[in-house]
Amino acid sequence: MALMETGKYSQGSVLGSVNPDLASERQTASFSVEKLTAWLDGGAEHTRLRRAVVEAIERDPAFSRENQYFQSQNERYEAAVRKAVHLQKKMDEMGWTDNGPEFKYIYRALSGDLAFLLHRIFIRSISMLGSDKQIAKWIPLATQYQLIGSYAQTELGHGTYLQGLETTAVFDITTQEFVLNTPNISAMKWWPGDMGRSATHTVVFAQLYVKGKCYGLHPFIVQIRSLQDHSLCPGITAGDIGPKMNFEHIDNGYLMLQNVRVPRENMLSKFCEVQPDGTYVRRGSQKINYFTMTTVRISLILDEVVIPLMKACTIAIRYSVVRRQSKLKPGEQEAKILDYQTQQEKLLPQLAAAYAFYFINDYLQELFNRGYREIQRKNFDMLPELHAFSSGFKAMVTQYSTSAVEICLRACGGHGYSLLSGLPSLYTKIVASCIYEGENTILFLQTARFLIKCFMAASTGQPVPPSVTYLAAVTPEKCPAKNKLDFLSPDIYTEAYQHMAARLINSTAAKLQDLIQSGVKKHDAWNQCTVQLAQAAKAHCHYITVKNFAETVEKLETQPGIQKIMKHLCDLFALHGIFSNAGVFLHDGYISGAQMDMVTASYLDLLAVIRKDAVPLVDAFDFTDKTLNSALGSYDGQVYQRLYEWAQKSPTNKQMSPAYERYLKPLLHKTLSKL
Amino acid sequence: MALMETGKYSQGSVLGSVNPDLASERQTASFSVEKLTAWLDGGAEHTRLRRAVVEAIERDPAFSRENQYFQSQNERYEAAVRKAVHLQKKMDEMGWTDNGPEFKYIYRALSGDLAFLLHRIFIRSISMLGSDKQIAKWIPLATQYQLIGSYAQTELGHGTYLQGLETTAVFDITTQEFVLNTPNISAMKWWPGDMGRSATHTVVFAQLYVKGKCYGLHPFIVQIRSLQDHSLCPGITAGDIGPKMNFEHIDNGYLMLQNVRVPRENMLSKFCEVQPDGTYVRRGSQKINYFTMTTVRISLILDEVVIPLMKACTIAIRYSVVRRQSKLKPGEQEAKILDYQTQQEKLLPQLAAAYAFYFINDYLQELFNRGYREIQRKNFDMLPELHAFSSGFKAMVTQYSTSAVEICLRACGGHGYSLLSGLPSLYTKIVASCIYEGENTILFLQTARFLIKCFMAASTGQPVPPSVTYLAAVTPEKCPAKNKLDFLSPDIYTEAYQHMAARLINSTAAKLQDLIQSGVKKHDAWNQCTVQLAQAAKAHCHYITVKNFAETVEKLETQPGIQKIMKHLCDLFALHGIFSNAGVFLHDGYISGAQMDMVTASYLDLLAVIRKDAVPLVDAFDFTDKTLNSALGSYDGQVYQRLYEWAQKSPTNKQMSPAYERYLKPLLHKTLSKL
Repeated sequence: MALMETGKYSQGSVLGSVNPDLASERQTASFSVEKLTAWLDGGAEHTRLRRAVVEAIERDPAFSRENQYFQSQNERYEAAVRKAVHLQKKMDEMGWTDNGPEFKYIYRALSGDLAFLLHRIFIRSISMLGSDKQIAKWIPLATQYQLIGSYAQTELGHGTYLQGLETTAVFDITTQEFVLNTPNISAMKWWPGDMGRSATHTVVFAQLYVKGKCYGLHPFIVQIRSLQDHSLCPGITAGDIGPKMNFEHIDNGYLMLQNVRVPRENMLSKFCEVQPDGTYVRRGSQKINYFTMTTVRISLILDEVVIPLMKACTIAIRYSVVRRQSKLKPGEQEAKILDYQTQQEKLLPQLAAAYAFYFINDYLQELFNRGYREIQRKNFDMLPELHAFSSGFKAMVTQYSTSAVEICLRACGGHGYSLLSGLPSLYTKIVASCIYEGENTILFLQTARFLIKCFMAASTGQPVPPSVTYLAAVTPEKCPAKNKLDFLSPDIYTEAYQHMAARLINSTAAKLQDLIQSGVKKHDAWNQCTVQLAQAAKAHCHYITVKNFAETVEKLETQPGIQKIMKHLCDLFALHGIFSNAGVFLHDGYISGAQMDMVTASYLDLLAVIRKDAVPLVDAFDFTDKTLNSALGSYDGQVYQRLYEWAQKSPTNKQMSPAYERYLKPLLHKTLSKL
Repeated sequence: MALMETGKYSQGSVLGSVNPDLASERQTASFSVEKLTAWLDGGAEHTRLRRAVVEAIERDPAFSRENQYFQSQNERYEAAVRKAVHLQKKMDEMGWTDNGPEFKYIYRALSGDLAFLLHRIFIRSISMLGSDKQIAKWIPLATQYQLIGSYAQTELGHGTYLQGLETTAVFDITTQEFVLNTPNISAMKWWPGDMGRSATHTVVFAQLYVKGKCYGLHPFIVQIRSLQDHSLCPGITAGDIGPKMNFEHIDNGYLMLQNVRVPRENMLSKFCEVQPDGTYVRRGSQKINYFTMTTVRISLILDEVVIPLMKACTIAIRYSVVRRQSKLKPGEQEAKILDYQTQQEKLLPQLAAAYAFYFINDYLQELFNRGYREIQRKNFDMLPELHAFSSGFKAMVTQYSTSAVEICLRACGGHGYSLLSGLPSLYTKIVASCIYEGENTILFLQTARFLIKCFMAASTGQPVPPSVTYLAAVTPEKCPAKNKLDFLSPDIYTEAYQHMAARLINSTAAKLQDLIQSGVKKHDAWNQCTVQLAQAAKAHCHYITVKNFAETVEKLETQPGIQKIMKHLCDLFALHGIFSNAGVFLHDGYISGAQMDMVTASYLDLLAVIRKDAVPLVDAFDFTDKTLNSALGSYDGQVYQRLYEWAQKSPTNKQMSPAYERYLKPLLHKTLSKL
């Protein structure tokens, strides 16, 4: 196929010179982009450090993602392993360490295309659940990569409900070993990352049996592949689970165990131990196990959810000021699509959400650091609240952001659908966050259980955590707003959210009690309320997110330029939520129909205001072109040139397809019958 | 990698024997599945014919989709071409013709993995837009595959707004040729299917210039590749646009034209012609061009949207009675996940929507057949209504169904995320339907323009089409329902939808007029109302869909068993819509908060009722396992066995990855530094 190599459109020089339609957007910013970036980073010195890390990574061709959209699952896995190995070298070279300040920027710079993430979880689980002796033995082996670890919990037939896991570990007192088995096909470990092709060891979660008695789930270190030649160990069957919607770079694996024996010392025994005579000993609190899951859920919010959403907004908004389509005024040039109200209404609320979730992540990090300090002081009082928060916010942020990324993709029309836009892979990756680390509906229901409990306690005057005291607060029955400007007052909308969340929890609690009092069994009654319970939990998280955004804006008083635009975004996030969930606000008349019209008017007005700063607001996220890896989202806005040049690199353009000689030529030449 | 070939889980015999958890669901069906299937097909004889076609296709190994989830873009393209060529042979062999009754079942049986679909559009556009002479010349060449056609309209910088297309065709009177050019990079044709690698010819839409005057968009037949060796013709640059979210089997292409000359006879000239002396002649109505676009939008609803949604429902619902997770009652076996209210609330409304859209498709087909008959009688009165309906319903059905398929995918947890579930490819394909053949927001606004016009006409007593007379109807101001059972009356909920749709159109028209009267220019006023206009158009389509569903149920009186379950589904579809869009019903108090509680109660009750028939309701869609191509959705429900066996076929399990020798072994053996 004769490709035009040096045709009139292939002027490489165009790339890098900023499209005037994008340049003009940057000239009218109402605030300093650099100041906003520094504030988001937590100070200019953090910005400098982040940029230095990103630059060091991007300068190194070994980390290039240039061909990512053309690679097969095998190629992506190989690249991820290569990069993970290379990263060790790079870190030595740069003097970066796992605990250093640079570390958190490395993942961002690599955009996650890295193997051995489960190796880290392997290390973390031994550190948290292992005895001092186990830590001393295994951690150095792991950190020096004398083994590659994984973490095998989920089974083919069992996910979030851990008690249902079927893998067994039976203590054999005669040999002082545990004998591990996956007794059914549904017991097979399924999904663990790094396990399908890479890992030599894994932490297996299995039901512990001693002398015929089951002691529940426990973690065991199991070697699965030879350190010499990587062949599978005796009794082990393992492999890759095959193609997925994304995460092609990860070798999610399956693992079957048939009478696999590990020494007694391989059960992680910080909290429980089987002694040589078969005596089972439990030490300390089991609750701390929850805290591990809890912290993982919180730790993924920034890197796996908020940053991808910020990227999607950057791509879609930059594209929307470069793309021109149809006319807004007769006789004029075709309009930038971001000048259409409908396009603003698609993208700007997602931009506001990206900021809202960036701030709620800060809030959650702070809450969890506080919780961690308390736990170190052996005070476990905060655990239920932390667990409820991690569940609910993980669910809300992942669900909201997934739908936001999808909106960004669709808002870019056909070009958004091209892998070269970067949006499809952002979507197919973020959608997994709704499922992994706890399925969202189950998580919402865990939050709901906590809220119902607190509501019951609060209504009988018992103390509840500060975050939920509002459940018992007396609020006005009607929203006091008199005109559309009143709805730009954070007090007005925050109170509306509070009222709505409290009402949903209150009314669902009442339904639950009614059912039980009418003779329905407790578990049936609970099941019959779960749709509403999940809704109530979501409403609670939404309320806290709005409240936290408003408080974040308030604290910005020393930076009036930034405060002003952040206030607009906060208003937009809040009013978009009321506009889109009008039913729950109108239901008891707290907001009247006439007031809802005011909300709508203010909401639509805000779109036009924020539209003017849309590009500076995404520029402030400070993603490099290489990080975005998008033909539509680059800083220079040369979208058409880039789409064209990138398409040339596709394997579909590398040679004439064999389909021509095999099928098309015989068809066209009518020699088909002679074949 | 040593894979267990004949291990204890690989008992091929399990496949085919129905999982008892699925079998039990079929024993309690409240209706005859076979009768429902026949009714959906339009009679038992159609069912027989469909099954015969599907069987003939599936028996032929050339049409196998077994490896689809493991194939690269190149491989999928080659397979699609191979199948398209083989299909010609098959049709000859079977005695099937393009106009025969079997034809519509072929595509369903092949699940769309076929090349040359744009070749069909090439033929259709010549048939509709060409002169008799052009038809006589080109159609035989095309139908006998002496050329392969495509259809080049969309450009890199221009989509739905056709007037903005930049490609030019200048009439050269001296040579009696048109000279075609894509003058800018944004003018390059981009996206046309079959064009990137297959087509020899294409219909190019270009701005016609004669003697310096522009006559607007016209279609030209242009040869792009040699019929001898498939090399690109002089002045032509073409290739594949690269990887996309799906449609890997289609060679969507780009095309640049540099002074490409075609004879005067190559402009399709049924409706307009350039005579040898340069005189431009227009014949007949241009409006008929709209009708082509209109019919394409309607014709895609069943195959590209409703059937994929039905497949997704089949997969997710069957999986949800096989998957057991957590306990509903303490001490019992883990529960089927479909027994949880939250899972029912995810899936059953999507099932109801699949039926609703299947029926609205029938309604639209009938409306369009009627319209077509009128047009043949030179009566173009129905065109605006048909255009408005095709736009709005295409947008509503694609948008709703895309989100429904996504819900099905997420409702299957981790396994839904595996390509082997079949759900990711259903999603990534259906999402494109929101973009192609007119971007949905633009389509909604076209419907809104029609509705506003009709509303204005109706309020001044002028006649309007029957489908929109409701805009001027007087309805009660309050919903008359007194208890939750009242909301199971189609009259009650249909009227609620009608009231709501009319109110949204009414209030948006009022806002529009207010803005204009306050001095805002018409186009600005329109833009400021577009968010609400799109909402109003959606509400109109939702109303018609509910009304049509209720009418369809009413007509089922001779089949009471089927009527009963269809009535439940209709109720569910309607009440789910009210529950999920509560705000628009509560806004003016038509439905009160207390009534909304009744809606919610009836809605949740219905979930439990329909849950019992959920599996029979998807069985009635009558998809074969090969059509579903899903490890989760097969008729026998052996999901875990199938996931495991299919994973074995993945290229990631075919050999030890080179990553071991290259990176893992040196890392583990610490020979890295010696490399």
